[in-house]
Amino acid sequence: MPDLRQDPISGRLVIIAEERAKRPFEFQHAPIRQRQTRCPFCEGNEQDTPAAIANYREDLPTAKPWQVRVVPNKYPAINGAAPNLSGDAVAADNVYQSALATGTHEVIIESPQHITSVTELTEPQAQLVYQAYRDRLLQIAEDEELAFGVVFKNSGARAGASLEHLHSQLMALSVLPPELQVQLRNCERFLHSRGECVYCWMIEHELEQRQRVVAESASFVAICPFASRFDYETWILPRQHSAQFEDSTDQQLRELSQIVRETVSRMEHALGHPAYNLLLHSGPFDRSAQAHYHWHIETFPRLTQIAGFELATNCYINCTPPEKAAAFLRQVRSIR
Amino acid sequence: MPDLRQDPISGRLVIIAEERAKRPFEFQHAPIRQRQTRCPFCEGNEQDTPAAIANYREDLPTAKPWQVRVVPNKYPAINGAAPNLSGDAVAADNVYQSALATGTHEVIIESPQHITSVTELTEPQAQLVYQAYRDRLLQIAEDEELAFGVVFKNSGARAGASLEHLHSQLMALSVLPPELQVQLRNCERFLHSRGECVYCWMIEHELEQRQRVVAESASFVAICPFASRFDYETWILPRQHSAQFEDSTDQQLRELSQIVRETVSRMEHALGHPAYNLLLHSGPFDRSAQAHYHWHIETFPRLTQIAGFELATNCYINCTPPEKAAAFLRQVRSIR
Repeated sequence: MPDLRQDPISGRLVIIAEERAKRPFEFQHAPIRQRQTRCPFCEGNEQDTPAAIANYREDLPTAKPWQVRVVPNKYPAINGAAPNLSGDAVAADNVYQSALATGTHEVIIESPQHITSVTELTEPQAQLVYQAYRDRLLQIAEDEELAFGVVFKNSGARAGASLEHLHSQLMALSVLPPELQVQLRNCERFLHSRGECVYCWMIEHELEQRQRVVAESASFVAICPFASRFDYETWILPRQHSAQFEDSTDQQLRELSQIVRETVSRMEHALGHPAYNLLLHSGPFDRSAQAHYHWHIETFPRLTQIAGFELATNCYINCTPPEKAAAFLRQVRSIR
Repeated sequence: MPDLRQDPISGRLVIIAEERAKRPFEFQHAPIRQRQTRCPFCEGNEQDTPAAIANYREDLPTAKPWQVRVVPNKYPAINGAAPNLSGDAVAADNVYQSALATGTHEVIIESPQHITSVTELTEPQAQLVYQAYRDRLLQIAEDEELAFGVVFKNSGARAGASLEHLHSQLMALSVLPPELQVQLRNCERFLHSRGECVYCWMIEHELEQRQRVVAESASFVAICPFASRFDYETWILPRQHSAQFEDSTDQQLRELSQIVRETVSRMEHALGHPAYNLLLHSGPFDRSAQAHYHWHIETFPRLTQIAGFELATNCYINCTPPEKAAAFLRQVRSIR
């Protein structure tokens, strides 16, 4: 029977409706083909993107000129300058707010080779990616106009990618979206009422119950969260409390890259290389959430479409109980 | 240059980023094929669905036994009984809330024929659909356990449909999701601070400015909202203030069915019959929002995937300024 759950951080409701997975599906998705176009992210095609903001390489004489390359997004959703104010925004009694927002939008190209999965990265290469995230966030955070940054990966067309070459994106904005304000407020309330960080509570509880644990390492835990929005959604959390991903040590980044590769490879083996999103949530740049926020990664395959009910209510319907999702992901083959 | 806008009702941020529409798209979506299966919604196959809750037909001797048929969803996301409490829900210090939620999930089959678009309905047939929505909402609202109901249509696989035969769904829950609580609270605040309903303000302002109006009739207005989440998003609002769709008269339903058909046909002609969602938002069943809520329909084609940034922040990136969307939708051919 369906179970309605509430995420303690966002307050978001999720309906866990296992029986619903059995419904017939009349449409047949033909495979998504890739067009034969010149890839702007491959080595040799650097002139197809704006000039690099930063390049990263291993400290080896044999390393390529760049192994990870950060460029401004050529088609930014937001950029440094103040945006147009829509014509009627201010005139209209201040009801229609068109904020003087600034922001940045960067692309992190994760390999000079045309690969499509993080599982194809060597360990040192994977680690460079996280170093790039850290460096870029640290630098962007110095801009006092910007409030927060989020790193995300859209892998596969169904997850919103427009190019298949392995990459991620960093967006930073001068305002904190209401959804993130609510999450921070709920984390703060939890700390005040219970004396601990809600994510720390969650890690402890999940490791005790062991119903939703997918993978573990010395410094990280991967779990399917209690109120998972999506089938097989998995969160990767540092065991040690820290609000800012950017404060991670090299050793932590090495371990993080390993557990991300393990988690994604479990998902790929379990579900046949689905499209997926990966989101890196860190505390706001002003570091006001040090005590109550806990940085982490959220990842989920895109097996179904987000449909009318979700878009009307922000309440998600998930057909795979996270307990079963975790059990299945634990069983499958993975790289470590 | 991108423009960051805030929806006055939900508080949701939207980035209007027109330049971003020019980015290259490497993937080629092969057309979605329909499987040759027996359609459970066609006349003659009534035994493939649970027994009808209600049938609707024109008051004519020549009318079919049913023209609109309402059945319980065979694969409900929620159902009448109290759901399972997840094993650790209550034990876990009340952090993991697994609510004793109840609900209903019904399907409204909009025609005995195998048609796929509302534009294929005759006018009397289209009107029966809205009568079915009204009747079902009125009846469900009598269940004191239920808090609200939402009617939605997923049309096409990319909008989350699993069957193509024209249909919509009604879900009602015993709790109001936080997103809807926030919207109602913001509407109430608006009323208190400005002495009018925010939707009434919006209608008046849009008709004055005429930048985002798509269609009009005696009782309804269709506009592309100022902070549209999606390209070509269109809202249909009754000119006269009313919180409850269920209070609509037959005459209003007739007009509503006409403006919905006109709006959808504009979208179909403009964008090549895209998948789309249509959401009918009415006030909560306890009628506590009579003064500040205003029922309406939201509809949007699903041209792009909801991607990592949106899922991380609930802030949407929309590549079509609503002013341009409305201008384009106004120009194209439509049925009336």
